[in-house]
Amino acid sequence: MPTRRELANAIRALAMDAVEAAKSGHPGMPMGMADIAEVLWNDYLKFNPGNPLWPDRDRFVLSNGHGSMLQYALLHLTGYDLPIEEIKRFRQLHSKTPGHPEASETPGVETTTGPLGQGFANAVGFALAEKLLAAHFNRPGHVIVDHRTWVFMGDGCMMEGISHEAASLAGTWGLGKLVAFYDDNGISIDGEVKGWLTDDTPARFEAYGWKVIRAVDGHDADAIKQAIEQAIAQQEKPTLICCKTVIGYGAPHKQGKEESHGAPLGKDEVAAARERLGWKYPPFEIPDEIYAAWDHRAKGAAVERDWQNRFAAYAKAHPDLAAEFERRQRGELPADWAAKTQAYIEKLQAEGPEVASRKASQMALDAFGPLLPELFGGSADLAGSNLTLWKGSVPLASDNAAQANYAHYGVREFGMSAICNGIARHGGFIPYDATFLVFSDYARNAVRMSALIPAQVVHVYTHDSIGLGEDGPTHQPVEHLASLRLIPGNRVWRPCDAVESAVAWRQAIERKGRPSCLVFSRQTLKHQPRSAEQIANIARGGYVLSDPLDTRFKAILIATGSEVGLATEAAQALAQQGVPVRVVSMPCTEVFDEQPAEYREGVLPSWCRARVAVEAASADYWRKYVGLDGEVIGMTSFGASAPAAQLFEYFGFTVGHVVDAVKRVIG
Amino acid sequence: MPTRRELANAIRALAMDAVEAAKSGHPGMPMGMADIAEVLWNDYLKFNPGNPLWPDRDRFVLSNGHGSMLQYALLHLTGYDLPIEEIKRFRQLHSKTPGHPEASETPGVETTTGPLGQGFANAVGFALAEKLLAAHFNRPGHVIVDHRTWVFMGDGCMMEGISHEAASLAGTWGLGKLVAFYDDNGISIDGEVKGWLTDDTPARFEAYGWKVIRAVDGHDADAIKQAIEQAIAQQEKPTLICCKTVIGYGAPHKQGKEESHGAPLGKDEVAAARERLGWKYPPFEIPDEIYAAWDHRAKGAAVERDWQNRFAAYAKAHPDLAAEFERRQRGELPADWAAKTQAYIEKLQAEGPEVASRKASQMALDAFGPLLPELFGGSADLAGSNLTLWKGSVPLASDNAAQANYAHYGVREFGMSAICNGIARHGGFIPYDATFLVFSDYARNAVRMSALIPAQVVHVYTHDSIGLGEDGPTHQPVEHLASLRLIPGNRVWRPCDAVESAVAWRQAIERKGRPSCLVFSRQTLKHQPRSAEQIANIARGGYVLSDPLDTRFKAILIATGSEVGLATEAAQALAQQGVPVRVVSMPCTEVFDEQPAEYREGVLPSWCRARVAVEAASADYWRKYVGLDGEVIGMTSFGASAPAAQLFEYFGFTVGHVVDAVKRVIG
Repeated sequence: MPTRRELANAIRALAMDAVEAAKSGHPGMPMGMADIAEVLWNDYLKFNPGNPLWPDRDRFVLSNGHGSMLQYALLHLTGYDLPIEEIKRFRQLHSKTPGHPEASETPGVETTTGPLGQGFANAVGFALAEKLLAAHFNRPGHVIVDHRTWVFMGDGCMMEGISHEAASLAGTWGLGKLVAFYDDNGISIDGEVKGWLTDDTPARFEAYGWKVIRAVDGHDADAIKQAIEQAIAQQEKPTLICCKTVIGYGAPHKQGKEESHGAPLGKDEVAAARERLGWKYPPFEIPDEIYAAWDHRAKGAAVERDWQNRFAAYAKAHPDLAAEFERRQRGELPADWAAKTQAYIEKLQAEGPEVASRKASQMALDAFGPLLPELFGGSADLAGSNLTLWKGSVPLASDNAAQANYAHYGVREFGMSAICNGIARHGGFIPYDATFLVFSDYARNAVRMSALIPAQVVHVYTHDSIGLGEDGPTHQPVEHLASLRLIPGNRVWRPCDAVESAVAWRQAIERKGRPSCLVFSRQTLKHQPRSAEQIANIARGGYVLSDPLDTRFKAILIATGSEVGLATEAAQALAQQGVPVRVVSMPCTEVFDEQPAEYREGVLPSWCRARVAVEAASADYWRKYVGLDGEVIGMTSFGASAPAAQLFEYFGFTVGHVVDAVKRVIG
Repeated sequence: MPTRRELANAIRALAMDAVEAAKSGHPGMPMGMADIAEVLWNDYLKFNPGNPLWPDRDRFVLSNGHGSMLQYALLHLTGYDLPIEEIKRFRQLHSKTPGHPEASETPGVETTTGPLGQGFANAVGFALAEKLLAAHFNRPGHVIVDHRTWVFMGDGCMMEGISHEAASLAGTWGLGKLVAFYDDNGISIDGEVKGWLTDDTPARFEAYGWKVIRAVDGHDADAIKQAIEQAIAQQEKPTLICCKTVIGYGAPHKQGKEESHGAPLGKDEVAAARERLGWKYPPFEIPDEIYAAWDHRAKGAAVERDWQNRFAAYAKAHPDLAAEFERRQRGELPADWAAKTQAYIEKLQAEGPEVASRKASQMALDAFGPLLPELFGGSADLAGSNLTLWKGSVPLASDNAAQANYAHYGVREFGMSAICNGIARHGGFIPYDATFLVFSDYARNAVRMSALIPAQVVHVYTHDSIGLGEDGPTHQPVEHLASLRLIPGNRVWRPCDAVESAVAWRQAIERKGRPSCLVFSRQTLKHQPRSAEQIANIARGGYVLSDPLDTRFKAILIATGSEVGLATEAAQALAQQGVPVRVVSMPCTEVFDEQPAEYREGVLPSWCRARVAVEAASADYWRKYVGLDGEVIGMTSFGASAPAAQLFEYFGFTVGHVVDAVKRVIG
């Protein structure tokens, strides 16, 4: 039988060799955390390499994702579909072993990590999802949801502000099945962290209500086992296991130093490390007995089989619950979803309520929420402003996890958004979060990660322009609409009335596995008349809202959200002056851009270069639709503190300005 | 003599009345913190209302900036140039009393606050600046820099992740003259914070190495005084004074509740509060004896006069130091700045080094740094990658504040950037910070605040594209260039070689009071030939880098940074095929857009619509220059993990693609 150390050294060797072959990468962390990983994966982690998506598996998250070779080595050794050829192709184009773990590329990678601290916050989301699902679905004698979330994190994760936000919430929520391993190696890229990290981290986490296990020797398997046993002996508090480790453990001249962090060790040092570790095998070669000791396929299959049997018994005893559990795991919407949402949208069109679109968003939640037990909402301390609480909302408290479908996240935009990425990746939920549009900045990289991982999170952003009014420029978004649209794979909806708001929500819910940003106004918006075809075309992202009667238009007005009403008023004024104008509502440019060329040409025909875009946000973005011949009425500065109506006037969002611009572009 | 409570009630009355008149605003915080503010401003704060910019004043920061009426009341009552008419125009267009405090609008407001947590981080920057200046300029018997930084913060600031980053650094740096007052009122917008904030905040700050004074009655002037005395009795640690307060103190039916936070109290409640507080005066009326007791003008002038006298003695004893102190306070560059930087740039042009632009940035620092003792650098744990350490860098340690000109900020991008905003607003420094371009996301709202406050911070962002290579899409910026350019008032430089890099640094340093982002490559860039006129035109943001010989160009290639080399190669290939093309280098679009129309027309003549932009970043941004007839070779997806050269090929940044695009647009 290989020793534990030998098993861990297999990770070390693969990490050294893969980084060496790639001529880039991070050997230090895998070599430092190999012993911890060995104990966790061999003795505790619940997983089945043959079915990486088995619902009741434990979730493992590598928040210090630069140590990706640790995870690839584990996946390879335990028997996931990650052959040695992929390890050899570490960091190469189209390999399954990219520089940082990517959920979309590699079986067994639960979430994409690398931007520090976010994996940790994702893990809080995983653990919350498990807690909620367990409370909701388990029944006496039928425990079908019962898994843990384990997360590795380093000094970088600890320094990031998001560690504060996520740890605070994990403590408040009492996520007792979350266990974090802190790789306390005293080194970050700039050198010994004592110059810039003097926190008493254990005390900090105790202040959040965590159980903290201090000063564990991260190279002593028994000590690691003992710490894990303490962590899982209770389920009231999340646990932080602080492991003292040596970065680059085994590399005789570079261990314990930042040199081992982010660059190949070099041929000589790799040889010296092999010597020091007693690892006698050539690069990428693992002896059979070590493969055999690591192989988790049979054990994993048995563990899953046991769960499948228990689930079958559950399904017999609670068929409806089991069916619902399976539906939510598959991410399928309820059977009556399409019909009921369509009916609601048509009813709205007929009734024509004139409300702020944030209110229309809440109305959509009231209409759709009852259909969607998987909806899990929240706001960063702006529930009453974002209007994210709907009639069926049950805010999470200490004793209601079975019913809860909402979290008060506090003023923690980044943590909230990254936690929602974790909830979404766990499965069983469609999370939505919310803040003012301007504060999407605070969460920005988590919004990017929603698109990159990808994760189906609905980011609700209200108070979407200078229409926010008196709070002033610090609270008024200007560049945010355009900059959210720039994130690849993201979709930004900015509806112009209650009908478009409902369609935006429907689209976001139906966008399986991928995120959307829904952007709503503070102020009341006019209702727009539409035919059935126009209603259908909202979902195409942009459509003709009005055309002149009995004559061909000479110019096109393109607008979104609160400026659609202004555009239609301007079009009417122009019509009275004998200038026929088309109005295009463009609630989601990304979806419009995906439409067939024929459809887009139908909306924005190339013969018409007389185009004016109107949006109370960064002007430049709209050049892609109006070109050099058109005009944009937008924002070119920060806003100001004043009542909203005055601000629209002051910054030029008036019928007069729009009319003048149209006349100029017609020439 | 009015009682202390009566003095505090003047703040409460003004806050209630102004919010009532504006029909919006936040009365709860000013009414809750009035007693604390009264003690601090009347007994401790060092300031002169007649000269808000006196260098040795204490800095007061309202991190919970929604309570702006607290600060406006204080400024008005103590005698700043903020008459009662301005209080009456609270939150109105062009008033000096916007919804949140704005440094550019109101005398006595040190920094613009509102986005929660950032004021606190700014305050850490103020305190650091003071510590550095004091150590550098004070001499035995001549203490000319000796002031404190006081910051008010609420539960929202505490929940934000940036509070962790900034507090951790303040503890590490031992900022003993920083005192934070935590408005521990137990209420945030969603209600009682105990549902979402269960941290032991005092223990958390002790874990950062702060002195913490717990459970101070924030409505008991003696208790407040005692706490402040404790805080200032030592200068080794920053102090957190935890004040138990009642939000909306004095409003009988709304105090202690979230209803008092962010909306007018209403006529009846204001009347009831007047009754409860014993405040008998009509709206906006302050009795003379209360004005008299608050009036700080004479005392403030005397305090400053004393300092001026001491400074005169210092100037006599240390004339060079005094002159240098005054130069740095005025934000003037050294007399030899222009000549020496110009000489360096010309030398670079002649020598033509081919280096990565991050290396060129470091070379610029080596050249300009010795001229600029006010330069204070740093990086978020990427010093060796960002190349922000130059030959004269002295990293801050526990014993070298007199010499230090660099901070290892740790992995804290947001805290770093907001701290730099504070350092810049303090005066005496031009700070630069650094991280990978993709992680500008983490700091995004602080970068916005650099432009909004405004503050002269140089944000250095390296690894500026897929050229980052193997670390993969989590680390490769795509949308960041465009989204940083969208921030009003910001300037983003992306130089194409060492010469443009030096000009970018020069421009950033010369942009007094306003920020710049300098974006540099990981990989080596080619040197570009230039005439003297072309060198001069770099500073215009965009210029003609090459024109065909002896013939008129048929198309224009526009590029930035690493893609300028590609564009020139493509132009050469096209020339060989008989297609004459102009190449425009556009290192800073914002500056180019500010040039006179004639200059812009000279670079991008309107007759030439055959335009192709090339940038390894979001494509859409470039439509503003190429319109609907042109093409953009850019990124429309996330990047990937692979060696950089393969990625440029894979994503289409090849001579062949550029050549084809030019031919297509010529038609």
